[in-house]
Amino acid sequence: MAEPIDFYFDFSSPYGYFMAEQIDALAAAHGRSVRWRPFLLGAVYKVTGDTPLPSKPLKGDYSKHDFERSARFLGLACRIPDVFPIGTQIAARAFYWLEDRDAAEARRFALAALRAYFVDGRDISQQDAVLDIAAAHGADRAALAEALAGDEIRDRLKDECAQAIARGVFGSPFVIIDGEPFWGVDRVPQIVRWLETGGF
Amino acid sequence: MAEPIDFYFDFSSPYGYFMAEQIDALAAAHGRSVRWRPFLLGAVYKVTGDTPLPSKPLKGDYSKHDFERSARFLGLACRIPDVFPIGTQIAARAFYWLEDRDAAEARRFALAALRAYFVDGRDISQQDAVLDIAAAHGADRAALAEALAGDEIRDRLKDECAQAIARGVFGSPFVIIDGEPFWGVDRVPQIVRWLETGGF
Repeated sequence: MAEPIDFYFDFSSPYGYFMAEQIDALAAAHGRSVRWRPFLLGAVYKVTGDTPLPSKPLKGDYSKHDFERSARFLGLACRIPDVFPIGTQIAARAFYWLEDRDAAEARRFALAALRAYFVDGRDISQQDAVLDIAAAHGADRAALAEALAGDEIRDRLKDECAQAIARGVFGSPFVIIDGEPFWGVDRVPQIVRWLETGGF
Repeated sequence: MAEPIDFYFDFSSPYGYFMAEQIDALAAAHGRSVRWRPFLLGAVYKVTGDTPLPSKPLKGDYSKHDFERSARFLGLACRIPDVFPIGTQIAARAFYWLEDRDAAEARRFALAALRAYFVDGRDISQQDAVLDIAAAHGADRAALAEALAGDEIRDRLKDECAQAIARGVFGSPFVIIDGEPFWGVDRVPQIVRWLETGGF
């Protein structure tokens, strides 16, 4: 049995959302499963000195245009939210708490949270929004709220971010297949060929 | 008659080289011509505060790996040169001097210079290498050498860089089709659809 593919993303990354919409089907078509790994771009940027894409001179304006054009190209709904980017600690912590209970439920929560943000413009930096979405996917709202107030889940997310950085993850989305790293949703054609051929 | 497509690139950019190998044929298939526009990433980075890709933490190592994998994916020869990146003022100035005399010859020179650097590992930051390549494509070596020593061609390249920045060019390759900007060789699929459909 092949190892799962690792899929790293930040909940505030449009390109991460575009990958989230296709990575499971793409992997399944080649008999592979996917481990979803939300992380915080902010934690990575502390190491790399990078800055959020939307605030970069020239590149920021281009990127906002490219987000929406890329969505149309991929046939995905996407509207850049009024508040963008946002902090995604709460969504990421909720993901890991859910994953410890039911990995498939955690993935459904993650995709729903990405759609809530990038399609419906819902501010998923807020705990209430995260709890609503998790509860709608079967989570125990009160138990999740209690977990989010504790230190354990904070430390867990810190660990996950440190592991991502240790594996060379510097952007979102970032996919690792049998040790081979692919950054960006525009690497999907290379990912497909890699899965088809076992490497090239 | 449709306006030419503008193709901006730095002679030291592997992704620019990958685009140079395909942009003319891609445009011609849709009845379009291409204006090649070498510029200096260094001039852009002074405005944007960006830094050369290979020296970025985490992203630099990934990029070197991705250059070579992307070349294999595209079926292009490419070996990251020992001296990389390099200053490309001389190559870019030579291009504009040639272009004023014969645009097709200038394009052949540019593609030959990119291949000399990325396939044969020749250091095209050196004037002798640039003169050799230009002469091999029909240029008057002595006249080009004289032009490269003067101020006129320096000012010309400065103007071209300023114009590129004014049009929002922040990376290499950068393609503009009827005002629509596309950054990166990984935008070729979107460029193809744009040319096929007139926009999407």
